[in-house]
Amino acid sequence: MKPETFDWVIHNAWIVTADKDFTVIENGALAVAGDRLARIWSLDDDPQLPPGRQRLDAAGGIVLPGLVNAHTHLPMTLFRGLADDLPLMTWLEEHMFPAEARYINPDSVYWASLLACAELLLSGTTTIGDAYFLARHVAAAVAEAGMRAVVAQGVIDFPAPGVPDPAEKIGHARAFVNHVAGRADGLIRPSIFCHSPYTCSERTLKEAKQAARDLKVPFQIHLAETGDEYRHLAGKYGCNPVQWMERLGILDADTILVHCVHIDTDDIAVIAGAGAKVVHCPESNMKLACGIAPVPEMLAAGICVGLGTDGSASNNDLDLFGEMGSAARMHKVAMDDPTVMDAATVVKMATIDGAVVLGLDGLIGSLEVGKAADLVVTDCRAPNLVPIYHPASTLVYAARGADVSHVMVGGRWLVQDGRLNGLDLERIVARVKEAVRA
Amino acid sequence: MKPETFDWVIHNAWIVTADKDFTVIENGALAVAGDRLARIWSLDDDPQLPPGRQRLDAAGGIVLPGLVNAHTHLPMTLFRGLADDLPLMTWLEEHMFPAEARYINPDSVYWASLLACAELLLSGTTTIGDAYFLARHVAAAVAEAGMRAVVAQGVIDFPAPGVPDPAEKIGHARAFVNHVAGRADGLIRPSIFCHSPYTCSERTLKEAKQAARDLKVPFQIHLAETGDEYRHLAGKYGCNPVQWMERLGILDADTILVHCVHIDTDDIAVIAGAGAKVVHCPESNMKLACGIAPVPEMLAAGICVGLGTDGSASNNDLDLFGEMGSAARMHKVAMDDPTVMDAATVVKMATIDGAVVLGLDGLIGSLEVGKAADLVVTDCRAPNLVPIYHPASTLVYAARGADVSHVMVGGRWLVQDGRLNGLDLERIVARVKEAVRA
Repeated sequence: MKPETFDWVIHNAWIVTADKDFTVIENGALAVAGDRLARIWSLDDDPQLPPGRQRLDAAGGIVLPGLVNAHTHLPMTLFRGLADDLPLMTWLEEHMFPAEARYINPDSVYWASLLACAELLLSGTTTIGDAYFLARHVAAAVAEAGMRAVVAQGVIDFPAPGVPDPAEKIGHARAFVNHVAGRADGLIRPSIFCHSPYTCSERTLKEAKQAARDLKVPFQIHLAETGDEYRHLAGKYGCNPVQWMERLGILDADTILVHCVHIDTDDIAVIAGAGAKVVHCPESNMKLACGIAPVPEMLAAGICVGLGTDGSASNNDLDLFGEMGSAARMHKVAMDDPTVMDAATVVKMATIDGAVVLGLDGLIGSLEVGKAADLVVTDCRAPNLVPIYHPASTLVYAARGADVSHVMVGGRWLVQDGRLNGLDLERIVARVKEAVRA
Repeated sequence: MKPETFDWVIHNAWIVTADKDFTVIENGALAVAGDRLARIWSLDDDPQLPPGRQRLDAAGGIVLPGLVNAHTHLPMTLFRGLADDLPLMTWLEEHMFPAEARYINPDSVYWASLLACAELLLSGTTTIGDAYFLARHVAAAVAEAGMRAVVAQGVIDFPAPGVPDPAEKIGHARAFVNHVAGRADGLIRPSIFCHSPYTCSERTLKEAKQAARDLKVPFQIHLAETGDEYRHLAGKYGCNPVQWMERLGILDADTILVHCVHIDTDDIAVIAGAGAKVVHCPESNMKLACGIAPVPEMLAAGICVGLGTDGSASNNDLDLFGEMGSAARMHKVAMDDPTVMDAATVVKMATIDGAVVLGLDGLIGSLEVGKAADLVVTDCRAPNLVPIYHPASTLVYAARGADVSHVMVGGRWLVQDGRLNGLDLERIVARVKEAVRA
């Protein structure tokens, strides 16, 4: 690509590419042309900065791929901190479901999702895997924020926000997929999400997966999250959660299994054999005391595992940097081995592996020429980022979302100098506060 | 106290007092006169703002006691991220000890400690429990930063920075205590720190504790941190770490045991009976795969447990908000019980309990009239802090150090609007980078 066409040249940076070799460039530069990455190189090899319309001196900070939060529920910012320190079933049945019945509507979903987008952008996430109800309004908020996402319409066997009659749930999901597929900008892709095998019947699961197959979109489900779920399925169907999915014919390369805490070695082989993807949400699993997913074993078996925060009612923030730190630390102590889940592995989970999970790895997840210009720049002046010996370690163990200074999606700066472009945070906050005061 | 004497009135705030009843005031105000808290009240009860020389509208943010980081090693910011994802003994013996021998000197200790102070202040910590060598230079940095601290001189059985001849280690420690005790401002108090029972002989431990007794200062030690240490003591002395301390007569109310991972129910009874204090460092314990300290059991036995980040070589940040979140989450999943380590308990560990550990609870640790004006204000505009239902939950599960907007120590604002007063961060960063480049 001709240097004359470069819109932005970012220089004086550590570049963590997250490419196949996990290439890290110490004194690097990166050029963006239009919505794509046009050139990535070492200034030690070629110190000449090419002409570009604009330049950003990263001042020794780190440039990394935009983070991929592979599982969350954006509208649940409404319920952040509403009911903590409770068992999952109490939390879900006595607090979340009633709160959703009362407070969730198209307006609150839109504003709460925008609040989540603001938090995500400011903390370096550029791509979202979302799963909720009233997904059309989630998608509208994500579009307003200018972010990239796979947005799923939820399916569940009882009346849900926007789907008062459960008989219409699959039809709703199909209509949502067609609605999003008709959009032009390509930043948002649709998906279908079954809440769980304990809230969706055999028929629901089969029909939802069939709809996803027909429409060629990813199918998502919370799976093997709790011991209660495990026992429920064992009692009802005489099998465990992964076996249940297998028996229903749901496991394939377009299925995303979220959590996978209560799985064993045989289950891991089944998931790997099917090529199904997994999303790991360590902070939610810890906070709800669900257990510790065998992520190192899954990775060893060749399963692609992305990283997610889960919703902000069970985390309670959407900071994927914190999630990286928790993922790295939790498995070390759980396995009594400080060498597992090293920093590079965890950075990959939060970038390229998350992109694979969402079916977007051809486009995003690593800094490689030709891919979309989705990237994050950290502020090297933050005292917690000094000194830098190994930038992957800095990102996982010392950086926080607040250390992000610049965020670009598809060649557009959505955050500059730690401030949102284009979103009116004050107004969003006011609207969310109104929604929960109502 | 007469309102005319108020120097500052902070209003429009959630006030998390961390007092005995864990009183939280929703629409609160707080007045500071000189270096003390002069009044704390609900604006619903008395909406009149008294005359004060200056006012701070907290705009719905949270005011909490300055955080107490009860165990860290400030100068180790030099080695942040130098050697991660390694076993503790490899990390310590092959990386940390050699790096210390090469890079630690009075100058590097001073600048690295100032860097740590900058990071701590910006993330809401006002009081530090430090333990390192060349402690005089650590204390000088803390004094320059205007922070409160208990600073300990390290004692170890081999040549250490500033103590080339191990025969002089106890003399060095005594001299340091006398040096600090002679200071006038009262913000810094001295202490003596034995590195561990595997790097300090029986004689060293006894003499160091005796020196601390003679000089009436706290005695600190890393204890029961790893399985290797446990096996080492079992092999050498036929007892476990807590029994070893008991046998040497070291356990009393002025002894601070850091880590206490490898302890059992009998040990907990011994520690509780002696009134010894404990510091919990969950992120370091996780990252080094040391194990999970039985903190809920210690709390149930009445042991006072503070919270620490440990040094930034094993964490790798000094953000006590992150540490609160990790403490709350880790024990839930470890004990398969989401109700343990609730938010209020964890906030107390990071404030009043840490103050008790350091012997400073008469002065700091809670927002109560007459105590020192050490406080933190969070920025309520941060999207991750919206909405607030229970501020303790917000602090533990959603806030990060970067959400701190204002920090006061002894009536002086050291951070305002997220910026350091009085410390030249750019110069500090440059000096630390020079030190590790050397």
